[in-house]
Amino acid sequence: MRRSIATVSLSGPLADKLTAIGAAGFDGVEIFENDLVAAPMSPEEVRARAADLGLAIDLYQPFRDFEAVPPAPLARALRRAEHRFAVMERLGATRLLVCSNVSPAAIDDDALAAEQLRLLAERAAQHGVEIAYEALAWGRHVDDHLHAWRIVRMADHPNLGVCLDSFHILSRDADPYAIEAIPAEKIFFLQLADAPRLPMDVLHWSRHYRCFPGQGDFDVAGLVAHVLRTGYDGPLSLEVFNDIFRQAAAMRTARDAMRSLIHLEEQTAERLGDVPEEAPARAALTLPPAPVVPTGFAFTELAAPGARPLGGLLTALGFTRTGTHASKPVELWEQGEARVLLNTGSAESGDGPALGAIGLESPDPAASVKRAEALLSPVLPRVRAPGDAPLDAVAAPDGTELFFCRTAHPDHPSWTGDFDRNRRDPAEPPGEITHIDHVALTQPWHHFDEASLFYRAVLGLRPHESLELPDPYGLLRSRAFSTEDGRMRVALNVAYVGAHDHAPDVAWQHVALASRDIAATIGRLRTAGTDPLPIPDNYYDDLEARHDLGAERHRTLRELGLLYDRDEHGEFLHFYTLTMGRVFVEIVQRFGGYRGYGAVNAPIRLAAQHSRPLPRLG
Amino acid sequence: MRRSIATVSLSGPLADKLTAIGAAGFDGVEIFENDLVAAPMSPEEVRARAADLGLAIDLYQPFRDFEAVPPAPLARALRRAEHRFAVMERLGATRLLVCSNVSPAAIDDDALAAEQLRLLAERAAQHGVEIAYEALAWGRHVDDHLHAWRIVRMADHPNLGVCLDSFHILSRDADPYAIEAIPAEKIFFLQLADAPRLPMDVLHWSRHYRCFPGQGDFDVAGLVAHVLRTGYDGPLSLEVFNDIFRQAAAMRTARDAMRSLIHLEEQTAERLGDVPEEAPARAALTLPPAPVVPTGFAFTELAAPGARPLGGLLTALGFTRTGTHASKPVELWEQGEARVLLNTGSAESGDGPALGAIGLESPDPAASVKRAEALLSPVLPRVRAPGDAPLDAVAAPDGTELFFCRTAHPDHPSWTGDFDRNRRDPAEPPGEITHIDHVALTQPWHHFDEASLFYRAVLGLRPHESLELPDPYGLLRSRAFSTEDGRMRVALNVAYVGAHDHAPDVAWQHVALASRDIAATIGRLRTAGTDPLPIPDNYYDDLEARHDLGAERHRTLRELGLLYDRDEHGEFLHFYTLTMGRVFVEIVQRFGGYRGYGAVNAPIRLAAQHSRPLPRLG
Repeated sequence: MRRSIATVSLSGPLADKLTAIGAAGFDGVEIFENDLVAAPMSPEEVRARAADLGLAIDLYQPFRDFEAVPPAPLARALRRAEHRFAVMERLGATRLLVCSNVSPAAIDDDALAAEQLRLLAERAAQHGVEIAYEALAWGRHVDDHLHAWRIVRMADHPNLGVCLDSFHILSRDADPYAIEAIPAEKIFFLQLADAPRLPMDVLHWSRHYRCFPGQGDFDVAGLVAHVLRTGYDGPLSLEVFNDIFRQAAAMRTARDAMRSLIHLEEQTAERLGDVPEEAPARAALTLPPAPVVPTGFAFTELAAPGARPLGGLLTALGFTRTGTHASKPVELWEQGEARVLLNTGSAESGDGPALGAIGLESPDPAASVKRAEALLSPVLPRVRAPGDAPLDAVAAPDGTELFFCRTAHPDHPSWTGDFDRNRRDPAEPPGEITHIDHVALTQPWHHFDEASLFYRAVLGLRPHESLELPDPYGLLRSRAFSTEDGRMRVALNVAYVGAHDHAPDVAWQHVALASRDIAATIGRLRTAGTDPLPIPDNYYDDLEARHDLGAERHRTLRELGLLYDRDEHGEFLHFYTLTMGRVFVEIVQRFGGYRGYGAVNAPIRLAAQHSRPLPRLG
Repeated sequence: MRRSIATVSLSGPLADKLTAIGAAGFDGVEIFENDLVAAPMSPEEVRARAADLGLAIDLYQPFRDFEAVPPAPLARALRRAEHRFAVMERLGATRLLVCSNVSPAAIDDDALAAEQLRLLAERAAQHGVEIAYEALAWGRHVDDHLHAWRIVRMADHPNLGVCLDSFHILSRDADPYAIEAIPAEKIFFLQLADAPRLPMDVLHWSRHYRCFPGQGDFDVAGLVAHVLRTGYDGPLSLEVFNDIFRQAAAMRTARDAMRSLIHLEEQTAERLGDVPEEAPARAALTLPPAPVVPTGFAFTELAAPGARPLGGLLTALGFTRTGTHASKPVELWEQGEARVLLNTGSAESGDGPALGAIGLESPDPAASVKRAEALLSPVLPRVRAPGDAPLDAVAAPDGTELFFCRTAHPDHPSWTGDFDRNRRDPAEPPGEITHIDHVALTQPWHHFDEASLFYRAVLGLRPHESLELPDPYGLLRSRAFSTEDGRMRVALNVAYVGAHDHAPDVAWQHVALASRDIAATIGRLRTAGTDPLPIPDNYYDDLEARHDLGAERHRTLRELGLLYDRDEHGEFLHFYTLTMGRVFVEIVQRFGGYRGYGAVNAPIRLAAQHSRPLPRLG
């Protein structure tokens, strides 16, 4: 499909928007009128600039409050239209978006609307312009796409068709199935936006919270599948109004937008199914290489210029230093299936230790990288010595390096082979840690949607519910992404509103390790003279009020300093280490299929962490 | 009245919240349970800390999902309550807030609710605790304060009363008049919050957008007047959930909160009226000195370390340098009633010229300062030479200095007397500028509510509608404040969402000067070789589409480079100078009572300004 985007979706002056849209590989653009009006470039210059960038001007928009009005406003609106047609001729644009009338002066009379739209289409035809009529979800009398289609059919003019917009349709919970009844040649345009489900008026929601498909809660792919079944072969065009994207860097947003469309085409193909009657629609779609879903964590790498304190912590937790990299200042620490790399050669950052990289187990590392590359993720250059195993890596949106590994499989060189193995002391008491449970990354507050899409689209992870966590210095949003079987989980945390001098983004990251006996692990830590993050006594008073676990169990939790949670599947115990630089470690033990992350206890952790010096993002 | 605030209204750990609340002069505090649970201080330590700060613990809150449930959940809830009573005894708190049940398990049965609340009150009495029952606006069966009162009356227990909350009442558009039917001794608590009218679900609205009274759209004072008529003499207590306040500095928020309550008591006194039967209610209120509303602008002061470019601009606009300060490096420039001070002695800032101070005409400058001081505004030290006129000044929230002046009145020394007057050249052509029309100040994005309240409460200005202005790099919010007669107007602009590396707050400020012949003024500027901010040709094409002003008038506007707007009262012409540092000048001409500020054209200005290097806030 041709891919297009409305200029209103991006920040900056029109010239910069066009550059970013062209650089991201779009085929066309919708020119948002306000962007043109404020631009120092003439319509002819915009036309030439778009052509230079390989961009067709697919739509000029919006034209408002036209149809179903008395004669005097109609005359004024037609005069206004003539001016727009003149601009469009200079611009080389041939399709004009006409939104359903929102004015209180509009008359509830479909025949009148059809008659006047027919008149507009007739005038438009004289300028070589076609009219795409769109039902706004908050239109005065026309707020439904099928209603708009009935009016278009009644008007019956070759230069008049409908514009379908996924936000206007899905925000009203309208069933998109009936779209299939509209002839393809009468679908003049298809605008796409997603949105998180928010409990608010649809106009306010639309103006501030739209996002790119795959970033919200709508089934945009399902809608596109219905549209493609009609035989529609026009562009898939993104149109997003979002307070945060309006402020973001245009090049970055445009790349995010393109990633969304690539993923959307793939999702649409899944919705179409593999039957012969869907073949024409499927053929219109361009598909990236299939996702290669990780099967678990291979390692986490901590950038720690002075490795000693982190090494001490790992030792106290029962880890053993099992290897040293043959050519790099990197130590391998292991316990059970949990592997931690300490990179002591990384550049000193003002913040101290940080989680710099994550190793993901992949059934096919090279295919994982191909997938990431096709979805516009930066592939990292391989810096390795001859003889080292290949390590394929891409950068996540927050800069974390993701390595695709195949540990200890005969069909692929294992990264562990690059380490000189230390002799293990057989008398050494084995720790209780079994594997990495999850990794939590804090994102800059304005990159949440981009990061969400990355983990869904690039890695094929499943998003979980978005949670609010009250931090002493603001609400945080937290959302987990996991494989279907839960073996690989990532939690993303962001501040709800923007940073400022008093409250910049806080940049904690953490690795959560699973223990098969958390009481033994916290005992081991204490015996080694290392204190976990202290939990206030008030927490245990509150826990007793909320849950009746029996006096002895309450006493044990309090004495050990463990946190408790439960869900309908089971129970959860956990504790945290003190933060070093940006990083801390969480130890968790799951009982009976508990699926969460102890979010109810996050405010206790955050309050305790804020009593210590804070690391900052960036 | 006693003044109180809920700890959830402020950022930070509990100890810091208490310190800020004490420092702002509150009498009491509501302890929000989550703040206590996460705190490392024991309840006894919190009690002692509050006592040291002179703060009573007026309420412990919230206790949720208690009433109208089957026996098993009731038993669990009573167990939970006993734990809370124990904590309250340690804390020395005697009132517990019980919110109406929101659980789907709650039964729609007032008699059952009353019976169970009576049981709770009976248990509470054994611990010396009283229960304040509050109807949440989203309660499952009880969402109205009068409904809560009917249940409390039915339960008929001395330890059970209602808690009234202005948000829960006013968000539902409930008439607060009927509050007067509740006996004062049964109103156990009064929580106050304001909110902007936002088109969304009430729970989402309440959780994220509450603000302090005077910052939103609710008639909180009207509600308080009804409560006081009952004879209520408990605390006025603020309870605000606000994403931005959660991130702000607690000391600053607490001061803002106290300013809100001082202003609220004053507004409540106005609502009570001056009749004998209202006297007891009025007597409970503490009133600050009456506001002294400014009557116009005395001057604006531009901090301009190198004055030459700004002097050149003023000359080009028809200003004359009429004086030099006797003891400071400050020049006085005048035209009509417009006066501009150029302060060449101010410290060099990285941003170049800035609007540093505004002189306001006051009928009584000393009283203006007393008013500002009573509303917790920092009074600035007077730095003046012996013989200089007194200049009373306070700092606005963004740091702008506000001087209260009495220019050329025999009853008061005039600040203009401190200037050595230059001889005027009688042959000099007089310019067309008549006076300062308005001043526009950009606030840091997270200080908008505080600034709004400042201009309303301290200066007694009237707030106008809040507008959205699309800047190329994000939506801006703009709100004007003016005297009733419109002679003194200030516009505040802020970014809608927070700053980040790519899009920090932009810090433009401007002075708008009124011209009686704007065509002559722009001609004068051009003749002097100074270009105004260029307006794109596309703007004039769009203007012709939107308005039919006749070909000649359109041609003139385009040739002159003037912007146009109209409202139901009249027309508006304006243009802008190029920005110097953080400052630019707007020239406006109002026709026939036009009341706006040309907001429709602001995006054109912003786009043009963004094509030049940007100044930044702070």
